Amino acid sequence: MITSADVLVVGAGLAGLTAARAVSQAGRSVIVLEARDRVGGRVVGHPIGDGKIIEMGGQWAGPTQDRILALASELGVQTFPTYDDGAKVLHFRGKRGTYHGAIPRISPLTLVDVARAQARLESLARRVPVDAPWTAPRAEAQDGQTAQTWIRRNTASHAARTLLTLGIEAVFACEPGDISLLHMLFYVRSAGSFQRTIDTTGGAQQDRFVGGSQLIAERLADRLSGRTAGATAAGATAAGATPADGTVVLGSPVRRIRFSDAAVTAETGAGETGAGETGSGQYTGRRIIVSAPPMLAGRISYDPPLPHWRDQLTQRTPMGSVIKCQALYDEPFWRAEGLSGQATGDGEGARIVFDNSPADGSPGVLLGFLEGDEARRLGRRTAAERRQAVLDSFVRYFGPRAAAPAGYAELDWQQEQWSGGCYGTLFGPNVWTRYGHALREPVGPIYWAGTETATTWSGYMDGAVQSGERAAAEVLASLD
Amino acid sequence: MITSADVLVVGAGLAGLTAARAVSQAGRSVIVLEARDRVGGRVVGHPIGDGKIIEMGGQWAGPTQDRILALASELGVQTFPTYDDGAKVLHFRGKRGTYHGAIPRISPLTLVDVARAQARLESLARRVPVDAPWTAPRAEAQDGQTAQTWIRRNTASHAARTLLTLGIEAVFACEPGDISLLHMLFYVRSAGSFQRTIDTTGGAQQDRFVGGSQLIAERLADRLSGRTAGATAAGATAAGATPADGTVVLGSPVRRIRFSDAAVTAETGAGETGAGETGSGQYTGRRIIVSAPPMLAGRISYDPPLPHWRDQLTQRTPMGSVIKCQALYDEPFWRAEGLSGQATGDGEGARIVFDNSPADGSPGVLLGFLEGDEARRLGRRTAAERRQAVLDSFVRYFGPRAAAPAGYAELDWQQEQWSGGCYGTLFGPNVWTRYGHALREPVGPIYWAGTETATTWSGYMDGAVQSGERAAAEVLASLD
Repeated sequence: MITSADVLVVGAGLAGLTAARAVSQAGRSVIVLEARDRVGGRVVGHPIGDGKIIEMGGQWAGPTQDRILALASELGVQTFPTYDDGAKVLHFRGKRGTYHGAIPRISPLTLVDVARAQARLESLARRVPVDAPWTAPRAEAQDGQTAQTWIRRNTASHAARTLLTLGIEAVFACEPGDISLLHMLFYVRSAGSFQRTIDTTGGAQQDRFVGGSQLIAERLADRLSGRTAGATAAGATAAGATPADGTVVLGSPVRRIRFSDAAVTAETGAGETGAGETGSGQYTGRRIIVSAPPMLAGRISYDPPLPHWRDQLTQRTPMGSVIKCQALYDEPFWRAEGLSGQATGDGEGARIVFDNSPADGSPGVLLGFLEGDEARRLGRRTAAERRQAVLDSFVRYFGPRAAAPAGYAELDWQQEQWSGGCYGTLFGPNVWTRYGHALREPVGPIYWAGTETATTWSGYMDGAVQSGERAAAEVLASLD
Repeated sequence: MITSADVLVVGAGLAGLTAARAVSQAGRSVIVLEARDRVGGRVVGHPIGDGKIIEMGGQWAGPTQDRILALASELGVQTFPTYDDGAKVLHFRGKRGTYHGAIPRISPLTLVDVARAQARLESLARRVPVDAPWTAPRAEAQDGQTAQTWIRRNTASHAARTLLTLGIEAVFACEPGDISLLHMLFYVRSAGSFQRTIDTTGGAQQDRFVGGSQLIAERLADRLSGRTAGATAAGATAAGATPADGTVVLGSPVRRIRFSDAAVTAETGAGETGAGETGSGQYTGRRIIVSAPPMLAGRISYDPPLPHWRDQLTQRTPMGSVIKCQALYDEPFWRAEGLSGQATGDGEGARIVFDNSPADGSPGVLLGFLEGDEARRLGRRTAAERRQAVLDSFVRYFGPRAAAPAGYAELDWQQEQWSGGCYGTLFGPNVWTRYGHALREPVGPIYWAGTETATTWSGYMDGAVQSGERAAAEVLASLD
C-alpha cells in the first residue's frame, strides 16, 4: 500500500478530487484520504431500483456554473432540465394557491414589500468583493448584524418577512438570525444574485445530472486511480506513469496532521464503521490540501498547533441544518394536473418542494427539504413522525395522492459526522470581518480547499471545483 | 497505572477537579484526564521570584461567588482585596482624566446616554431565566440580533456606544457583534447584573487569592490523589480508601470517547509536548464527565456519534479572544501618585488595566488586557511589537515611568490549544434558542460540566465549581 506522495488531500468530495486530479495531471503523485466508505462528500446518490438513483445531497447545476458543467461534460456525465413545466404551489398563511412564472398570487402589497427588500439586497450584494468580503464599503456594519435584523428593518409586513425567511431557509438551510448580513450578501454575490440562487430555470436549480451528481465524483476517483468504478479502500496500481498515479483511500478519517515547512504526516483513525483500528495509518507528503469544511478541518489535531486566527476561524464556521426527504410514486401524478411539483409553504414539514423524478419521469419523485428550524425540530423526532410531517405537507401542496408513496427516503445531514450539516458553512456575525483572511491562507505546507473557500458559487458544487483547482495551483506553484 | 474507575473526568480545570472531588467523596473512584502538563485549565500562575506569582488566567472573585470562595477557604487559600484605592484613569477620545468612584468625568450627556442603556439592559436581563434563557419573554427577538445591533438602537451617541463596547470587551473578550443580545442578557443575569461584572470593590474583580488562583486547582488535585504538590503524569497511590482514590493524569488529551449506555472508554493521544505516543492510553469507566468547553468537547471524536443537536451546538460555541499582559516594576509607583492602577481607554493596546501587584505590593504589577479586536490584531504581531503597544498604553495612563518595566509577561489565550481562547464561550445569534437545551443534557453515560454550563456566574471560576458539583450529582444519582 502506497503511503507517501508529493501531495496528500483530505477529503474525496468534489473539491478534494478536483484538486487531486489537477495535482496528478501536473505529474505529481497524490493520495486522497477519505473518512467515509465512499467518495462524493456532500454529493451522494441513493439507488431506487432499475439502475436509477435519487440524489440525497447536492444535485443541481445552472447557468454560470461553468466549472462543474465542464467537468461533468468531460467525464461524460450528461445533464437534463429540472422539471419546471406547469404551475407552482404556494401554501401561505393557511391558503393554497397556484401560479405560473416567478410571481405568486398573493397580496400586491406583500409582493411590493418583498420586491423592494430584494432589490436592496441585490444592490448591496453587488458592492461586496467576493475575494475579500471584509473590504465591502459597509462591511463592519453589515457583519455586525444578522440577516434577521436587516430583514426586520427593510420590510413593512410580517408576510414579506416570512417570504424572505423562506428564501433564506431554502438557500442557506438556516434561519435569518443564524447568519450575518455580510455573509448573505457575499453568498448571493458569489452566485451572481439572490434571484439566481432561488430560480429553477435560469438559476441554480436549472439542471440535473443523468445518473446523479455523485457520478462526477465517482468518475473523478476512477480516473485518478486508473481503476474502474467501485473503488474501495485500497492502494494504487501501476507506478511511474504521467499523469502521476493517484490513490483514493476510503474509511480513513484524518485525525492528526503533523507538519514542518516542507513535509507533512497525516495520521488516520478508524473509519465511521467503528471497526477498531481499521483504516488507521500514517501518510506522508510534501504538501497537504484539506478540503473538508472549516469546522471539520478544525476537528483535526495539528502539530504544531495552527495560528490562532485560523483556529478561531474554525470555531466560528458551523454547518447548516437540513434533512432531505423524498417520496416515490408510481408516476408524477401532479404533472397530469398541470403542476410542476414545485411548492413553497410556511407551515410545518417541507417548505420547499421539487419534482425530483429521474429524467424519464419514472417513478415520480417529490423532494422536500426540511431546513433550519424545521430540520432541528423534526430531526429530534422519530423517522416515522418525520415522514408523516413531510407527507402531510405534500398533501397540502398536491392533494391526497401524495399521502401514500410507494417508497420513501431521507438523509439527515445534521447527523452525518463527516459533514456536520449541509448545505454548507454559516458565517455568523463578525466572522468574515475578523477571520475571513484565514479562510484560504496556507499554513506551512497546509492548503485549504472546499466550496466554502470559493469566490464564485461558494457553497455549491461549482465552488467546490473552483476551490480544488485553486488549491492545487497554489500547491503546484509551491513545489516548483 | 490505574486505567479504570467508576467515573472518568475530561479536564483538570476547576470544573473537572470539583466534579472529581465530589465523586471521590461519595466513595466512587475517579480518573481525571488532563491534556496539559498542569492542572487549572484557564486558571494558571506565573512565578516572578521570591515565591510570588502573577495570575495569567482567571484570578478574581467577589460577592455572591459563594462556591469558589467556600472552596478556597476549605483548601486554606486566603483572599485579599484587589488594590482599589485612589483615582482611576480614563483615556477617552484623546484626553486623559482621572476620577474617583464609579462615574468618569466625561460629558454628562454621554453619561446619561450610557446610564439609560445600561438600565434597560439590567431590566431586560432580570427577565432571563438563567437555567433556560430560550424561554425568556422575547428570547426569539433577542437571540436573533447581536449585542451590537441592540447598542446602536439604544444609544444616542457614538461616545456612549464606545463606552458600552469597552464594557463588553472587558466582560466577554469579544466585540458586541460577536454575541447575541440574549447571550449578553443571560451572562450578566447569571452574574447578578452588568454592574456587578464590571465593578472592582463590590463586584467580580473585588478579591484575589493569596498565592494565586491556580493554588485552588493544585490543592484540589493534591487532595484528590492523596499526594503532595507537584503532581505529574502518574497513577494513583493506595487503593481502597474512602473517599475513593482519585487519579489525575496529565499530558493526556482525550481524543476519542467510545460509549454504550453503561460503559465508556476514553482514548488519549499524545500531549501538547508533541512527544510522539507519550500519554496515549485507554481508560474505562461507567460514566464520563466532560468538563472542557463545548468547542473543545466537539473536537473529541465520539463513537457512536453524538446526536446532531449536541454536535451542532459544539460547532456554534467559539471561545473569546484575549491576551493577558503584565508589566513588573520595582514598586507600584502609581499608588504614590494617588492612582489605583485601574485604567480604561479607547485607544490601541490595553483598554482595561488593573494594579495586579502581589498582596504586599511588591513588585508593582500593571495588568493590561488585550481583548476582542485588539487581541486579534496584536495577536498577529511579534511579541516585541505587542509589548510595545501595551507599554505605550500604560504610559498614556500612568506616565513615562510605565515605559521601562523590570519584567514583562504575557499569555495569548487564543494560542492555547487546550482552551482555544478565553475567557469563555461566546454564544452568537440563534445559539441559545436553537441549541441551549443540549448544553447540559447527558448523552448516554456522558455528562457535561465546565463554567459554560453554569447557571450562576457562568464563565467565571465560581460557575466552574457549580458546574462540577452539578455534573457530579447527576452522575452519582445515575450510579445509585
